[in-house]
Amino acid sequence: MPSKEGVNRRIVLASRPRGQPTPRDFRIEETAIPTPGEGEVLLRTLSLSLDPYMRNLVDEVGPGYAPPVEVGAPMVGGTINRIISSRNPKFREGDLVLGNAGWQDYAVSGGQDLLPLGEMARPSLALGGLGMPGFTAYVGLLDIGQPKPGETVVVAAATGAVGSVVGQLAKMKGARVVGIVGGDDKRRFAVEELGFDVCLDRREPRLAERLAEACPKGIDVYFENVGGAVFDAVLPLLNIGARVPVCGFISHYNEENLPSGPNQLPLLLAKVLQKRIRMQGFIILDHYADRFEPFRRDMGAWVDAGKVKLREDHVTGLEHAPTAFIGMLEGRNFGKLVVDVTPG
Amino acid sequence: MPSKEGVNRRIVLASRPRGQPTPRDFRIEETAIPTPGEGEVLLRTLSLSLDPYMRNLVDEVGPGYAPPVEVGAPMVGGTINRIISSRNPKFREGDLVLGNAGWQDYAVSGGQDLLPLGEMARPSLALGGLGMPGFTAYVGLLDIGQPKPGETVVVAAATGAVGSVVGQLAKMKGARVVGIVGGDDKRRFAVEELGFDVCLDRREPRLAERLAEACPKGIDVYFENVGGAVFDAVLPLLNIGARVPVCGFISHYNEENLPSGPNQLPLLLAKVLQKRIRMQGFIILDHYADRFEPFRRDMGAWVDAGKVKLREDHVTGLEHAPTAFIGMLEGRNFGKLVVDVTPG
Repeated sequence: MPSKEGVNRRIVLASRPRGQPTPRDFRIEETAIPTPGEGEVLLRTLSLSLDPYMRNLVDEVGPGYAPPVEVGAPMVGGTINRIISSRNPKFREGDLVLGNAGWQDYAVSGGQDLLPLGEMARPSLALGGLGMPGFTAYVGLLDIGQPKPGETVVVAAATGAVGSVVGQLAKMKGARVVGIVGGDDKRRFAVEELGFDVCLDRREPRLAERLAEACPKGIDVYFENVGGAVFDAVLPLLNIGARVPVCGFISHYNEENLPSGPNQLPLLLAKVLQKRIRMQGFIILDHYADRFEPFRRDMGAWVDAGKVKLREDHVTGLEHAPTAFIGMLEGRNFGKLVVDVTPG
Repeated sequence: MPSKEGVNRRIVLASRPRGQPTPRDFRIEETAIPTPGEGEVLLRTLSLSLDPYMRNLVDEVGPGYAPPVEVGAPMVGGTINRIISSRNPKFREGDLVLGNAGWQDYAVSGGQDLLPLGEMARPSLALGGLGMPGFTAYVGLLDIGQPKPGETVVVAAATGAVGSVVGQLAKMKGARVVGIVGGDDKRRFAVEELGFDVCLDRREPRLAERLAEACPKGIDVYFENVGGAVFDAVLPLLNIGARVPVCGFISHYNEENLPSGPNQLPLLLAKVLQKRIRMQGFIILDHYADRFEPFRRDMGAWVDAGKVKLREDHVTGLEHAPTAFIGMLEGRNFGKLVVDVTPG
């Protein structure tokens, strides 16, 4: 379903999901293409980013760092945009920018939230390894996790947009890297293409034992992005002085209630104390002012030199964004998930 | 029951407690006074320290930083000792030292674990505010908690050996300090004598609401030494960027099993992420090499100047150590708990 001339298609939140979202929680609408006011630009969406954090934005109570999406409002998110027309002297028609147009064909912006991209060979990388997810991996692993040569780093969702970069940066720092993924193809990719030392399947019935075997010297850095059974398997293996950057926990995003007992909180406190663990949450929005420029410079060079490989999973057509998003929450994507809305 | 001439009384672990220890888990024995070998000294115990961490040492699986006390072996712990005889050139008969003689009248030592105390006016302070508990407060609050002027610091067990120092140091740093204690006498003492801004009774039926009222600007540092209901009340109030030094969690030490559900672990992870919380466990043994000298200098000056007040709860007689220890785990002590074994 291509875009229709003169029409802005947008996907709105039709209802708040209870647990795992379903296609009926979203609705595609057609509206007029908005008109930019003085100082604004009109953006055409070339591709849009789907990321796990978006699940938190559709709950009634938002995650705190961003307001929740209202029912009936367009879904929000990072986008690659072409500027169609400009009433802002800083931007010209035809410019390629990173924006926040959300799940729609067109949007207007005052320009403050736009980052010029020049003419990138793969603009969509600005939604992944060269953008927010890569930056999340960079800050979380390097600034908070601080892996040292010979240490063991564990990361789950290891072929995803964040995890794949975490593992590759940890390898660059001389660490042993153990990934956890869902599926044999991803497992092989993590080892053969990304250079992880070991990669396990999270569906493995004896995950905790297999992880212990894969980490004979324990775990020094656990990059937390999934929670659940992986966290449970990691906890007993954490070494003295381990660091746990907490980036997310996708396995819990769809939960409506806390899981049943026992209450493992005292177990975690005991482990944090006994092993002198530093556990630190971070929201990447906090770090743009200080760390985004060094990240862009470093990561750009690493990607150009082939030291960091970035795999993308492209879905074509705005109308497929809801099902792609739902699939991502189940781990069905393989690489950074991008919806291509219209050719560049 | 005073000590008998020529006899070493010692209290041994008679059985591993199940849950809260009982007097029957301990036994007093009489043995010969040990004879120091070449390079050793004979120590007489003047007073001994009772501290919550000891509860962890009597479980079959120790806490990791120290081996468990074996059944039939003397209870371990910090002591103030007089040197009775010396075959070590570094120590002279009559010297006063901080040692690790445990719950007994006499012990021998090679000297490596002894810290000369000179002639202190109140030697027992070396077991409390000027010793391990004060040092725990110093490192945990200043190095990990890092309170800033105007921030809110919460500490439980607030008239105890560690908590009372945490609160007073936080006041010195310009923070608003909210204590939590068990009992009205302790509550008044924390405010009137120690200078806390507010102090709540942990038995308060509406503790979470009262804590929220006492922390109108949220909580920036929570010094975790109790766990349980206090932790549950603190968690929703933690501010963005809050620090949680994890020093212990006495409310769980007697638990044989994890508490029933729901499992609050995902709730904690969500809060750590959303609020960018840094939670860090520490074991004070790790910090002596680097930080003990600055601590002794600073704390000695603060105590001398009356800026830090140290309240002690003295029990007389080695034979009362078990009941005093059991009472401490129930919060019955009021100040740093010390057993006076023999006059200086």
